[in-house]
Amino acid sequence: MAEKSERTREYILDQAYKVFAQKGYKQVTMKDICEAAGLSRGGLYSHFPGTKEIFEAVLARITGVEENDFAREIRNGTPAAVILEGALEAMEREMDHPEESLGMALYEYAEAVDPAVLESLNRKAEERWSALISYGIKTGEFRKVDVEELVNVILYSYQGIRMWSSIISLKREVPRSVIRHIRRELVGDETSNARTDGGK
Amino acid sequence: MAEKSERTREYILDQAYKVFAQKGYKQVTMKDICEAAGLSRGGLYSHFPGTKEIFEAVLARITGVEENDFAREIRNGTPAAVILEGALEAMEREMDHPEESLGMALYEYAEAVDPAVLESLNRKAEERWSALISYGIKTGEFRKVDVEELVNVILYSYQGIRMWSSIISLKREVPRSVIRHIRRELVGDETSNARTDGGK
Repeated sequence: MAEKSERTREYILDQAYKVFAQKGYKQVTMKDICEAAGLSRGGLYSHFPGTKEIFEAVLARITGVEENDFAREIRNGTPAAVILEGALEAMEREMDHPEESLGMALYEYAEAVDPAVLESLNRKAEERWSALISYGIKTGEFRKVDVEELVNVILYSYQGIRMWSSIISLKREVPRSVIRHIRRELVGDETSNARTDGGK
Repeated sequence: MAEKSERTREYILDQAYKVFAQKGYKQVTMKDICEAAGLSRGGLYSHFPGTKEIFEAVLARITGVEENDFAREIRNGTPAAVILEGALEAMEREMDHPEESLGMALYEYAEAVDPAVLESLNRKAEERWSALISYGIKTGEFRKVDVEELVNVILYSYQGIRMWSSIISLKREVPRSVIRHIRRELVGDETSNARTDGGK
């Protein structure tokens, strides 16, 4: 039973994510999430007391995932250039799918409820990118960039594109060129080497 | 009389800007703007029929200013490095004052009324930065960067910071490091030279 309940909870969070991505935070009601998840009111309320708690659970899940990946790969000795390619591909995919962005919902949640959640998400993103870039510099795979500077460029150009692309349609070249810039800064112009050699 | 009416109109737009920066677009009422500008309802309505028209007039004024500056300076033969320093200082000032940002209001306006305004603002910003960077490469003051790539990095990291800093408090080092990055890309690490030599 616990396992089924856990599965239902995960399913609710998947469906709620889509609702928040589409409607933001403020306008979403428990009824919207019931409908998206195909649950009765009672079914939904047995898992979550309100949209605030659902949104926070969605965020916690995202943060959890983001927190782990680089650190684990670094511990496993995966080459920095390989981790970077995976991260850039994920970023490009996310920037190409603005309809899946929680940008507006996060914005509204931070304004209405609690900016601290965003601060924490932001700090974690900073930490994971700093760790990756420092690691790549140490292994000699990345150029000796100013870590903090490049982390800020990465995070905010990504956020800017996510935000804007959820309102206006951006050419696909926009996210691509930002990804190219990050890659160029870290591994130089010979990007194809980074993929195949992995810095070894 | 025409002149006084024009001055009142400008004053309304100044005050309305602050209201939109503070409250976004959707929640602003004509009453808010009457109060901010110290006008009666009749006084305000004799200038503008509604908040939509006021917001659009605020935007038109911003866009007008942005449109002119680089092009005029380039025509006047101002060194690219000097124009760049002025632009970066303005950007840094804007990023340091999130309370003056129309970010949220623009977002809400684009969602509620018309994304085309944002597309046009965006295109103009792209054009002016592309013109400046191409000019600086031609005069030999800037490094031969990929123009489109760097323009996207500039615009979206700026937008990302403006957006985020209106919700959470960012360290001042964040905008500074992004400015440093842009300067480094264009004029190399010896930033002090760019200021004094102006590429001459």
